Amino acid sequence: MSTAQSRAGTLYIVGTGPGDPELMTLKAARVIGSAKVIAYFAKRGRQSHARSIAEAHISFGAEELRLEYPFTTERDVNDENYIVGISEFYAECTARIAARLDAGSDVGLLCEGDPFFYGSSQALLDRLGTAYKTVVIPGVTGMSGCWTCAGMPMAHGDDVLAVLPGTLDEENLVERLVASDAAVIMKVGRNLAKIRTALQRSGRAARAIYVEHGTMTGERVLPFVEFEEMTAPYFAVVLVPGRQRRR
Amino acid sequence: MSTAQSRAGTLYIVGTGPGDPELMTLKAARVIGSAKVIAYFAKRGRQSHARSIAEAHISFGAEELRLEYPFTTERDVNDENYIVGISEFYAECTARIAARLDAGSDVGLLCEGDPFFYGSSQALLDRLGTAYKTVVIPGVTGMSGCWTCAGMPMAHGDDVLAVLPGTLDEENLVERLVASDAAVIMKVGRNLAKIRTALQRSGRAARAIYVEHGTMTGERVLPFVEFEEMTAPYFAVVLVPGRQRRR
Repeated sequence: MSTAQSRAGTLYIVGTGPGDPELMTLKAARVIGSAKVIAYFAKRGRQSHARSIAEAHISFGAEELRLEYPFTTERDVNDENYIVGISEFYAECTARIAARLDAGSDVGLLCEGDPFFYGSSQALLDRLGTAYKTVVIPGVTGMSGCWTCAGMPMAHGDDVLAVLPGTLDEENLVERLVASDAAVIMKVGRNLAKIRTALQRSGRAARAIYVEHGTMTGERVLPFVEFEEMTAPYFAVVLVPGRQRRR
Repeated sequence: MSTAQSRAGTLYIVGTGPGDPELMTLKAARVIGSAKVIAYFAKRGRQSHARSIAEAHISFGAEELRLEYPFTTERDVNDENYIVGISEFYAECTARIAARLDAGSDVGLLCEGDPFFYGSSQALLDRLGTAYKTVVIPGVTGMSGCWTCAGMPMAHGDDVLAVLPGTLDEENLVERLVASDAAVIMKVGRNLAKIRTALQRSGRAARAIYVEHGTMTGERVLPFVEFEEMTAPYFAVVLVPGRQRRR
């Protein structure tokens, strides 16, 4: 992949944190400021969240690589069209980034939250990490941002915490909620109705909290039982705080 | 608690991140630099980890409140002596911090990792949060620091991730490991032998990773099967990465 490995640039995969630009790490700010090339994922026709968070630190004159997803709606990860389309997309992203690294430029790939925690950059690390020097910078996760803006200590002492995608089937959600002291349900989006039923069946609805756009403009935090809408954004989360044994 | 509420200082509970001082957030660095009083937990005869991480940002002339734990060894959370001793300790910490807040000083209480994720500061928030203005600053968790320094993407797509205290009994650990795609086992310490057996029984030993002092001096990362010692530090973690369905 690289014909000039020794002079190739370094790929920095930079966690930008949950949304508030001040919740980036000192290391992320430094690396973003010094990279000649800044890359980020974006949805068609939308601003890149990660870029918005990092914007103040991007150096004047840095080249920007906007990596635009080929899909505009949520897709099932087992859908064959999704699998083919996303593979082609990642191959194209890989080629664009590799060209800059080969030319000797450092590339900062921005990633919301923490890159190794449900991060979109993992597919590019799989494709670039063996051929190029790669440095990953962890970030504050979206869920940490959400429970902090909810003012809700989540887990303490011997609590078991489960991180559950809302895509799990209802039985599975109920079982895991019952078996855990604390839980974070992610990807609420079109799974809202099922999640609502699972929270009721597991006895967790009363202490659950709904958070939308945590630490960002448009932040909404409310007790889940007071959230009566029938739709929610993809990135909304439901928190079920632990600490039920505290004295 | 406060007789001059309107002029009382603000309590900032500041997540300092996993250990590397550069993994503090910009907000944490700013708040630590401006607080007149900096408080932190410490073990008797030891440096405070949180203070070491934050040291470069503490302003010249800030008052420091060292909150020294009354116990020097790991205690069972159900031990009556522990319960009485720790309650007295928290009451004393509360009084010391409240006195500074009442005098109008802002207090920055340092907390390793993320305060609302197994943080030691939660007990003081319970005691001070209703009487004083409190701001919590989330941080990069210790587990994010560990999986980043292990170079190990942990969870992706529809993975279920379980955060498990090593204090769980063996059957419980085995069941939860089998039921999850990814897992983090914390508080390895004196639970090492049990954790080793649970990893073997659950079929997770081969992909598990042992991390000690992640992102700090003395960092050790190795495949769990190559870690043959019979003891481990309290704060060591075992990571079981997910992403087994990736293409």
